[in-house]
Amino acid sequence: MTNIPLNDLKRTFDKHGMALQAAVGRVMASGWWLLGPATRDFCAAFASYVGGGECVGVGNGTDALEIALRALTPDDRHGAGAGDDLPEVVMAANAGGYSSFACHLARLKPVYADVEADTLLLSIDAAVAATSADTIAVVATHLYGGLLDVSALRRALDAAGRQRVAILEDCAQAHGLRGCGGMAGGLGDIAAFSFYPTKNLGALGDGGAILSRDEALIARVRALHQYGWSRKYMVDTPMGRNSRLDEMQAAILHVLLPHLDDANAARVAIQSAYAAALPASVTPVRSPLGSVAHLALVRTADREALKAHLAARGVASDVHYPILDCDQPGFAALPSRVAGTLERSRSAVAEILTLPCFPTMTDAEIAQVCDALGTYAG
Amino acid sequence: MTNIPLNDLKRTFDKHGMALQAAVGRVMASGWWLLGPATRDFCAAFASYVGGGECVGVGNGTDALEIALRALTPDDRHGAGAGDDLPEVVMAANAGGYSSFACHLARLKPVYADVEADTLLLSIDAAVAATSADTIAVVATHLYGGLLDVSALRRALDAAGRQRVAILEDCAQAHGLRGCGGMAGGLGDIAAFSFYPTKNLGALGDGGAILSRDEALIARVRALHQYGWSRKYMVDTPMGRNSRLDEMQAAILHVLLPHLDDANAARVAIQSAYAAALPASVTPVRSPLGSVAHLALVRTADREALKAHLAARGVASDVHYPILDCDQPGFAALPSRVAGTLERSRSAVAEILTLPCFPTMTDAEIAQVCDALGTYAG
Repeated sequence: MTNIPLNDLKRTFDKHGMALQAAVGRVMASGWWLLGPATRDFCAAFASYVGGGECVGVGNGTDALEIALRALTPDDRHGAGAGDDLPEVVMAANAGGYSSFACHLARLKPVYADVEADTLLLSIDAAVAATSADTIAVVATHLYGGLLDVSALRRALDAAGRQRVAILEDCAQAHGLRGCGGMAGGLGDIAAFSFYPTKNLGALGDGGAILSRDEALIARVRALHQYGWSRKYMVDTPMGRNSRLDEMQAAILHVLLPHLDDANAARVAIQSAYAAALPASVTPVRSPLGSVAHLALVRTADREALKAHLAARGVASDVHYPILDCDQPGFAALPSRVAGTLERSRSAVAEILTLPCFPTMTDAEIAQVCDALGTYAG
Repeated sequence: MTNIPLNDLKRTFDKHGMALQAAVGRVMASGWWLLGPATRDFCAAFASYVGGGECVGVGNGTDALEIALRALTPDDRHGAGAGDDLPEVVMAANAGGYSSFACHLARLKPVYADVEADTLLLSIDAAVAATSADTIAVVATHLYGGLLDVSALRRALDAAGRQRVAILEDCAQAHGLRGCGGMAGGLGDIAAFSFYPTKNLGALGDGGAILSRDEALIARVRALHQYGWSRKYMVDTPMGRNSRLDEMQAAILHVLLPHLDDANAARVAIQSAYAAALPASVTPVRSPLGSVAHLALVRTADREALKAHLAARGVASDVHYPILDCDQPGFAALPSRVAGTLERSRSAVAEILTLPCFPTMTDAEIAQVCDALGTYAG
């Protein structure tokens, strides 16, 4: 029995080490370390991979969400009064808080809607019901790498008279996720990506990106990610910040991008192997519309028992995420609204467990996890 | 005649290339790319170099200013009402906007006070006069690498009954700057550093740091720079964000730190050579209390004529910074207050010019700039 970690980033490096070292070495020696050819080339390649539009590299995935939301906020709503007057953004409460951070930083009010019980993705019905005249956007998070039906969300919003509510795809866990006649990141109005090292496409440090086909929107993003400058030292757009993708990280991502589909296939195969091995008391969490298995989640009534059973068999596990956004003590004093009871979100948060799932897992390791799952009596 | 650029980062890399490549290679192969041993070791070394306290690595210098200001903001003033109720931060208007961005992002009101005519550093008298009962901090920017007398500022604030107004040192241009019985970054209550590549201590990409000897304050910084987490996924401190120094950048900075004093000495020697070569119509901008010559600035009535004269002799020049913060169109709709006429700031902004000054300049290049300066009739 070997100990199987939740992830092992060193293996990711080992697999592509020579190419990564060479790419980083070239950037280092070039003397051009920000907003240069590596970022330009990676962003072009990534936008093309996702299916068109433009890509702006930023510092990390949370910055990507924040800047995308600021870009979606109408100019006359910037710096609106406190509390009830803030523009609203509808989202699920079970996605780790990142969209909530982005809202609070951008002076927007998160509105929490419930999820679907099987996929744990935002419920389209609940999301539409949670919108109001103040809603500027819905965050469509492809949580765990499972596809949210963005086309259906758009149709439902339109049918409810919410044509002006934008859809921000949160693709932090969904690089290369195909479905809905396209790819995650190209299905809504604007998309935010994280390249945190554990992501399906991960840098060797922090990084992020914003994608959109809307030229006016991406022009706002481009300004907001570097001080609102129209040119150097000339601030024209309010509420800009500094958030850039390092050239070294862009070069790393460009090396890894051609391997993304294979890595995703390996993740999905692991997720499928687990699903086949599960006892009746444990159910997989997976979108039927498509998955890149960023995290392999299961759900069971007695999570602690399953966790202990796995640990005794050398299998690490964790909870993503243990606290709903609406229950975070640090958000309690900040503006927010909860739409409905979030009954399905609350029920799931006590039952979910994340299993090891990364593309460099060996067959023996996968078999060991499957054996451990199969022997769980529950 | 060769063309002399304002800076040449490729030379910085060439000078330390082997050590930098080795350090980056080690971090890449380690599989630990954020918040690991490289960041821990560099932060400890940097805090020790500056003279004590604790150092938290962040994503860039503007984030450092924003997070430091958020840490200084009392909890009951977070998310305070719009407009006139915002806590105030006193600063100079001629420092490129970075502290203004940080204020607007943190929902604080920048209050602009005038500078001294000779150093272009914040006037202590003007700063104290600009404070109010709403002032939470004064930003002491060691602009261009020139030392602001932080001890005198402290005494003046105290004498005016402003004992509770904190001093935030902006050290983005002042790495290794000694004076006032210590080093810039250790003279006030908290300090923000940028490691943008052109800085005296620069990364090969974005990076920043916050230093303080105040344990409660640095604990707030540590929470705010990673989501306000008290532990993973548990948000306890409101208004956190994600802003981390990459391990690769920390390793790079650790390689360069032992060379900082020598590089600063080379910069200062260039600044002194220029001062000796200037005709009567051109005056140097330099703090008498100490300088690390981040930028070599001069001042002259007809800036465009001097710029053209230098360009004809192969010498690049630029303006830092061409627009006062209070005149930026993108800030016009945001809360701010201007204390007095800013007469000296306004007069200087039309007359300043920045000359090439970087530690890898050759003697021949320095001589060429001196010759060009000396032949300016003005």
